[in-house]
Amino acid sequence: MEDHDIILASASPRRESILSKIDLKFVSIPSDIAEDFSIKLPPKAFCKHWAREKALNIAKDYPKSYILGADTIVVLDNNILGKPKDRDHSISMLKSLSGKTHKVLTGVSIIKIDSGVDVLFNTSTYVSINTLTNSDIYNYIDTHSPYDKAGSYGIQDSFSVYVKKIDGCFYNVMGLPISEFYKHFLEIIKREP
Amino acid sequence: MEDHDIILASASPRRESILSKIDLKFVSIPSDIAEDFSIKLPPKAFCKHWAREKALNIAKDYPKSYILGADTIVVLDNNILGKPKDRDHSISMLKSLSGKTHKVLTGVSIIKIDSGVDVLFNTSTYVSINTLTNSDIYNYIDTHSPYDKAGSYGIQDSFSVYVKKIDGCFYNVMGLPISEFYKHFLEIIKREP
Repeated sequence: MEDHDIILASASPRRESILSKIDLKFVSIPSDIAEDFSIKLPPKAFCKHWAREKALNIAKDYPKSYILGADTIVVLDNNILGKPKDRDHSISMLKSLSGKTHKVLTGVSIIKIDSGVDVLFNTSTYVSINTLTNSDIYNYIDTHSPYDKAGSYGIQDSFSVYVKKIDGCFYNVMGLPISEFYKHFLEIIKREP
Repeated sequence: MEDHDIILASASPRRESILSKIDLKFVSIPSDIAEDFSIKLPPKAFCKHWAREKALNIAKDYPKSYILGADTIVVLDNNILGKPKDRDHSISMLKSLSGKTHKVLTGVSIIKIDSGVDVLFNTSTYVSINTLTNSDIYNYIDTHSPYDKAGSYGIQDSFSVYVKKIDGCFYNVMGLPISEFYKHFLEIIKREP
């Protein structure tokens, strides 16, 4: 395959850093798509839907490239937690995660229009959080402003001290399940002429 | 507690980066201790033994500070895999991990001589690896020279594409179980005068 043949349809610096772990050249072109939480879909369908919307948004302009779209959500008791709207929303999200196990789902879409590639999957990771005090929560929000993060936390920052354990792919929680993506991508390029 | 009151008795840049996630000041002073694999201890006792040896080695010179020692090993079928001696050793380690689940154990020792603090624990994480081809293994070794890493891989580098899932603390696999350490450390400073 050619260099620069992959386009990451995301503005997330975390996804960029994860994808950089693989020896594949890529460029990032953020899509215009923002998740619309008023669309009522079950969690797995929801994150796959938005991953594909993001990939399609870029794919139409770059039909010869592999476009990678991803959408990460946090699911607690079957409710989707997106990015917090403001400080109060962030506080209530973190309170709801305290002392519990939640699920992080990332939908991943790989599209290449010219050769008809249209792969869509999702990956789940269970994350168990220690009991958080109010002061843990306020300190974390005030020092990290986690407003760009689903569930209002970053597993790669100081919130890691509250993560008791995970079950599944770590990088999925950061925004891109790299091992699953790589497996699918190798299968895709094997099938290409 | 005072600033610079914690000494990380390790030369590992990975442990330094993990400990930096917490809002606690520390300095790193590597110990002179190297694990001696001829000492036959069961895996949990082995990594706790060497964590404490590393901490003690520094603690004797800094009796007023909290000294943090850690030792990480990879355990497969109850055999301890340390750091590979050379390329062939690295190849055989990675072949043995291919397609299987192994355990990563980190022993952690926290010592402060002046106040009699001597805490010792270990944390386990299960890591499941995809099937690796010979070319996966050769490429990885040639690009990463993983000779300073127990088990011959780094979960934070491009080896992540072969990690199917983990069960437990991610940072434990990198060398320091930050959430367990933080919990123990808060308990220790609560008890101090």
